Amino acid sequence: MKTTPECVACFMKQALLATQQMTDDPDEAIKALKRAAEFITSISRDKSPAEYATPIAKIVRSCFGNKNPFREEKQRYNAIALSVYDALTAYVRGSPDPLEAATRIAAAGNIMDLGIFANIDVEATVEQAKSTTWAITHLEHLKHDIAGAQSILYLGDNAGEIVFDRVLVEVLPPHTVTFAVKSGPIANDVTREDAIQSGMDQVAEIIDTGCDYMGVPLPLCSPEFLEAFRSADVIVAKGMANFETLSDVDANIFFILKAKCDSVAQEIGVIKEGIVLMAQKLRLSPEKPIV
Amino acid sequence: MKTTPECVACFMKQALLATQQMTDDPDEAIKALKRAAEFITSISRDKSPAEYATPIAKIVRSCFGNKNPFREEKQRYNAIALSVYDALTAYVRGSPDPLEAATRIAAAGNIMDLGIFANIDVEATVEQAKSTTWAITHLEHLKHDIAGAQSILYLGDNAGEIVFDRVLVEVLPPHTVTFAVKSGPIANDVTREDAIQSGMDQVAEIIDTGCDYMGVPLPLCSPEFLEAFRSADVIVAKGMANFETLSDVDANIFFILKAKCDSVAQEIGVIKEGIVLMAQKLRLSPEKPIV
Repeated sequence: MKTTPECVACFMKQALLATQQMTDDPDEAIKALKRAAEFITSISRDKSPAEYATPIAKIVRSCFGNKNPFREEKQRYNAIALSVYDALTAYVRGSPDPLEAATRIAAAGNIMDLGIFANIDVEATVEQAKSTTWAITHLEHLKHDIAGAQSILYLGDNAGEIVFDRVLVEVLPPHTVTFAVKSGPIANDVTREDAIQSGMDQVAEIIDTGCDYMGVPLPLCSPEFLEAFRSADVIVAKGMANFETLSDVDANIFFILKAKCDSVAQEIGVIKEGIVLMAQKLRLSPEKPIV
Repeated sequence: MKTTPECVACFMKQALLATQQMTDDPDEAIKALKRAAEFITSISRDKSPAEYATPIAKIVRSCFGNKNPFREEKQRYNAIALSVYDALTAYVRGSPDPLEAATRIAAAGNIMDLGIFANIDVEATVEQAKSTTWAITHLEHLKHDIAGAQSILYLGDNAGEIVFDRVLVEVLPPHTVTFAVKSGPIANDVTREDAIQSGMDQVAEIIDTGCDYMGVPLPLCSPEFLEAFRSADVIVAKGMANFETLSDVDANIFFILKAKCDSVAQEIGVIKEGIVLMAQKLRLSPEKPIV
């Protein structure tokens, strides 16, 4: 997906949110925002928004001695999400179609994105998960593909959300799931630390992308990750940054996300705030017969 | 008022909105936004946000051959507002306290700001005006001061809104009001053309600030305007940009505005979205005895 004009304005908003994590001093904050603006003068439309959002996050961080205030935030969000884990699991187990219920839980977890929303109410999120309606759902395709899958690669997104992802991973075929985290801290994206805190490491093999970039920009990923990516029978990709970086990649990806901005919503073809479980193969070749 | 970090992110949002008025071509739009970003690298906190928002609007405009799409927009907004003028006037005339009612109408008109809101519903605005509650109101001070005033300077804000301002001007002492417009087009700010279209020229003397800047940055204003500013017994200043540029000026100003962003709300000391009729003399010297 290409960067849009709306993305460019959003970069500054994201830089502001990151800066607010770092300092209360307006002069220091503006200094960092000017550095972000300087970077923006160099962008083009060749890359996805996530590939620009990452250097902007790094620039802001570099203005404050590379401190990582998201670490505590992420721990807090994981803990909040873990406090509702039992309720989520009970809901899924009691559902007539546990996989279907678990995909709604995973989608609801995607609302927890510090990069865009400064505050969130987890209990409301759980209720919302129960009543989630899909703008697009290719659930039957997902069911079909995972039924025969030997390997499923699950691309993680944010802290907190990873607990919701775990609920979905637990209803996937046992011993098939590899869960991908970032190789280093970037915004509130999941790293190995979050996989351990959330218990994801107990239900999936953990791998890292080989880079500390939002989403999965393949040219920057490690050979080990690329091997896992290429050999996976099914890829589940959570959140907007994974979509932004993989929207043109021909692989058996199922995106689960909430379209939080107009640009992504438009790229997908849903209304803003629309929640999707979307098969890449149907996006890239909509005329293909189902399955 | 000094520029805040939030303002810096908002500059890019305003640049985006201005760009969207100019083109549907994402490459052209991003080119303009990069020019805006380049300007942002040069800002400091010395100036008010409006003093930076103006050059940004001009930079965007310059990227598109200085065309002025706001001209038609403004005409359209004036026409929409004029269509409810009779209803507004009838409401004020039928009120037990016409001045009080008219200040609420004027405040409601301030919601019509294309620079921040892309869409607006005028009829809902009228209803809102009727039920406006003030976060701050120094109405009794305003009444006292205009009772003895020989000259009232009314600082206009945006097109559309000017019709709401006219309703207030019409209940001020006759032959006392000078209404200030911008000397040239800038965003959707009122110029002489809007004063004529709205009929403001029939009820007030029209003057221009001597510059095409948002708000009233005094060092850039003409000697004629400064004379009118200094000699006015009462100044009514509409909207955020007038507040931003005059918040530190010791004059008998009454600000009427809706605090549409956190930065202005915080500077005033009200919640965001708070509507105020606020005497500058009480802001700068809160300990002063009333009147």
